[in-house]
Amino acid sequence: MLQLYIGNKNYSSWSMRPWVLLRQAGIAFNEVFVRFDSFDASSEFKRALGPVSPTGKVPVLVDGDLIVWDTLAIAEYVAETWADKQLWPAAPQTRARARSVCAEMHSGFTALRSHCPMNIEADLAHAGALIWRDQPGVRADVQRLVQMWSALLQEHGGPMLFGEFSIADAYFAPVCMRLHSYALPLPAHIAAYVQRVRELPGVKAWIDEALAEQDFLDFEEPYRLQPTQG
Amino acid sequence: MLQLYIGNKNYSSWSMRPWVLLRQAGIAFNEVFVRFDSFDASSEFKRALGPVSPTGKVPVLVDGDLIVWDTLAIAEYVAETWADKQLWPAAPQTRARARSVCAEMHSGFTALRSHCPMNIEADLAHAGALIWRDQPGVRADVQRLVQMWSALLQEHGGPMLFGEFSIADAYFAPVCMRLHSYALPLPAHIAAYVQRVRELPGVKAWIDEALAEQDFLDFEEPYRLQPTQG
Ligand SMILES: N[C@@H](CCC(=O)N[C@@H](CS)C(=O)NCC(=O)O)C(=O)O
Ligand SMILES: N[C@@H](CCC(=O)N[C@@H](CS)C(=O)NCC(=O)O)C(=O)O
Repeated sequence: MLQLYIGNKNYSSWSMRPWVLLRQAGIAFNEVFVRFDSFDASSEFKRALGPVSPTGKVPVLVDGDLIVWDTLAIAEYVAETWADKQLWPAAPQTRARARSVCAEMHSGFTALRSHCPMNIEADLAHAGALIWRDQPGVRADVQRLVQMWSALLQEHGGPMLFGEFSIADAYFAPVCMRLHSYALPLPAHIAAYVQRVRELPGVKAWIDEALAEQDFLDFEEPYRLQPTQG
Repeated sequence: MLQLYIGNKNYSSWSMRPWVLLRQAGIAFNEVFVRFDSFDASSEFKRALGPVSPTGKVPVLVDGDLIVWDTLAIAEYVAETWADKQLWPAAPQTRARARSVCAEMHSGFTALRSHCPMNIEADLAHAGALIWRDQPGVRADVQRLVQMWSALLQEHGGPMLFGEFSIADAYFAPVCMRLHSYALPLPAHIAAYVQRVRELPGVKAWIDEALAEQDFLDFEEPYRLQPTQG
């Protein structure tokens, strides 16, 4: 059975992508949870990952003897191994665009990623308003998302970016979490896409488990002093 | 005919990867040179890229109606379209590892990338020695490269990372440029791999054209005050 090593569901945006992808695709896997105690060399996290991850990061997919690390390589491996699931769009030209948006996400959107770390359980609307006011890089990242998603939703007719669910939606699922938690301003048709992503069964399952986690980690919390009560 | 939009050969590490890949694969293409005047919204660079690149960055590959942006998506498109060239390793498990190292490069090695920007014509050994002394992140990045490359060269027997030339070598070619220009300390077998990459015909051609460019751009030059005489 496949094993997927992941970090805290509330915080680990990279872990979320392959987990959602496998769930949505209906591919069975064992989840190996590696809690974020810290990212120091001496942490439990690094100790647990040492034997399996050459980078000391999650996610890692283990399939028998094979270790696949780094989210995009995991997505490609899953798409290739379960080709019948059509996790990339079938037409070569459309597939090239889907890969372009995923590769752009893989190395880009740094302002959004650094100022708005994923934190599913938190209501960060107040922080989000200040970030929106003060961080032109975040506004530029959101503007690019709106432009990209609008074009794709229009071209393929929705409900997902390339019509049916694909790797691209899994790739942007953590971004949808951030847009929601920080309540960043979005046009209605983009807010509707974010909502549709949140309602995908694989995403909903991840959110539910993130909410159940109740693990407040100071170093992932630039904006909250303590967990939300209740 | 394919069109590949690229930036300055002396500086543009991302442009180098698909250019080297296409050259090494013997795939014909027209190069569209977009000089780095600056990256401001009003620059010639952004103006020239506007109609073709949704991100305003190079490289971009144009194949008829299709626009593929972001290096990794370009590499996948080329590998898929010219499947006979075997640009990824043929065995699925080996291919998954090759994709893992490329995806790791695509989003990682940030200390090396930021402290040692590519600058092919420059001799930056002095800056390199200070960077090596002062930047633990750079040392960690190089350590990871040494570990990764040592394992792959041993496993596949060289001369390239996965035996024959593959996308992975194109992906690390700009890193080889940096290791050389900044004269960072390397074990002999790794220095020998760097040298083999430098001697690949596609890499050699890029280096020669970079040297011929003679275009000194202040904003790409944290370490030199003026072009090297000679
Ligand atoms: N490019 C990597 C990024 C993975 C990543 O940064 N994961 C974070 C958790 S979301 C991590 O493990 N961080 C540990 C560290 O930075 O030491 C991928 O796509 O898998
Ligand atoms: N993830 C992109 C990165 C491309 C990139 O950053 N290119 C640089 C030149 S090496 C660029 O065009 N920079 C312009 C800018 O940042 O505005 C890719 O792989 O293609």
